[in-house]
Amino acid sequence: MTASVTASRADFEARLRAIGAARYHDRHPFHHRLHSGGCAPDEVRAWVINRYYYQSRIPMKDAAFMSRVEDPELRRAWRSRMEDHDGSEGNEGGIRRWLRLAEAVGLDPAYVASTDGVLAATRFAVDAYVRFVRDRTLLEAVASSLTELFAPAIHANRIEGLLKHYDFADEASLSYFRNRFQEAPKDVAFGLDWVLAHADTGEKQDAAAGALIFKTEVLWAQLDALEHAYVTPGRIPAGAWVPGEGLLARAAE
Amino acid sequence: MTASVTASRADFEARLRAIGAARYHDRHPFHHRLHSGGCAPDEVRAWVINRYYYQSRIPMKDAAFMSRVEDPELRRAWRSRMEDHDGSEGNEGGIRRWLRLAEAVGLDPAYVASTDGVLAATRFAVDAYVRFVRDRTLLEAVASSLTELFAPAIHANRIEGLLKHYDFADEASLSYFRNRFQEAPKDVAFGLDWVLAHADTGEKQDAAAGALIFKTEVLWAQLDALEHAYVTPGRIPAGAWVPGEGLLARAAE
Repeated sequence: MTASVTASRADFEARLRAIGAARYHDRHPFHHRLHSGGCAPDEVRAWVINRYYYQSRIPMKDAAFMSRVEDPELRRAWRSRMEDHDGSEGNEGGIRRWLRLAEAVGLDPAYVASTDGVLAATRFAVDAYVRFVRDRTLLEAVASSLTELFAPAIHANRIEGLLKHYDFADEASLSYFRNRFQEAPKDVAFGLDWVLAHADTGEKQDAAAGALIFKTEVLWAQLDALEHAYVTPGRIPAGAWVPGEGLLARAAE
Repeated sequence: MTASVTASRADFEARLRAIGAARYHDRHPFHHRLHSGGCAPDEVRAWVINRYYYQSRIPMKDAAFMSRVEDPELRRAWRSRMEDHDGSEGNEGGIRRWLRLAEAVGLDPAYVASTDGVLAATRFAVDAYVRFVRDRTLLEAVASSLTELFAPAIHANRIEGLLKHYDFADEASLSYFRNRFQEAPKDVAFGLDWVLAHADTGEKQDAAAGALIFKTEVLWAQLDALEHAYVTPGRIPAGAWVPGEGLLARAAE
């Protein structure tokens, strides 16, 4: 068996970035549809409902990671991710911002927070990610977070596209994405540096690259499922959200 | 099979407190020896070295707990425990304070932090606790933290006893215990309230009580192992710390 050749740090980083260029979910047809104003209101709602499940699991994923880290320095550096999503002093956190987006698209935030209407395929993909981070090597766990390298472009397109094409979109409802502009770069700078430093053999580089590919599969599969269920003609599986459910009751303005 | 009768909230709390009165490790002969000045310097060092392993796993235990919590409010309330031990803005954290104690008793903090000399029995007991919190019900996980109900008394005795009997002891070296005076009560007030609220059947009360008993066994077993290995005549197993190892090199004062 031939061992993999160890690439230089620069070549390995290029390899990781090429994975994003090929597989990141900004290439998914559903995102093109969403950002160009092509989604009907219920398609947007389905996206918000399902994406919420992913958001709600991120802090659990990050806690699962930290539960395996023996180095207090690494835990301290990673802990800010939980604060970003769960909130802290003076920061409501990403989860609450996502529920504000839910409200802006006409959904009852309590319904969205219950995760009752989430597609089974969404749960399977997201839970696979949480388990991956809990069970695999630390290198693979950190590498799987590096999709954030590719996120700034998608957030920019998304904010611009949503503001342009949808009435619900304004700075308040899109505050989740604005915040990620500041939070994601610090996370990914740390994560990328850690992976480049620790993937010091060809075998480890393959494992890290594999983890990043896995993560792109987690994200892509969610959009495939969303598209299949809700984009006309949708095929909504039993138990998943049906348009008309979970809407915000319009009280007196 | 007869179902357990559900006790009132007050009776159930009394049941939990009775477990502490019977089984908390403040009753262990090693602690009496330590607090009364009866420990030789190497016995104190062995205690510091082994106790460090427990300290180092607490943040991992708390992250393991949070990785299973779907409620952001509960995660937010629990997160302060990680900050208490790992540190945050303006707070060096309990782990660093314990290493200061290590230095005060003449041990090289890098040696202690490596956990190289820790007894296998210590690792087994502590790892069992981390896995318990990861794998059991949330009620059992929270209930297992309630030994903190009984901790203030032991910290008071310990600080007083150590200051009185040992040269190494001063406010700086004992800062870990001083800090726990403020941190533990907030943690346990939350945890006790949560357990009393959620243990609403006889079966759940039995599970919570069982979890608290389990935790007292984790603490007690560590002291039994410590006593067996290091208190004269000690029987130190292969691989564990041997007096003379891991000492702080006495550089020019």
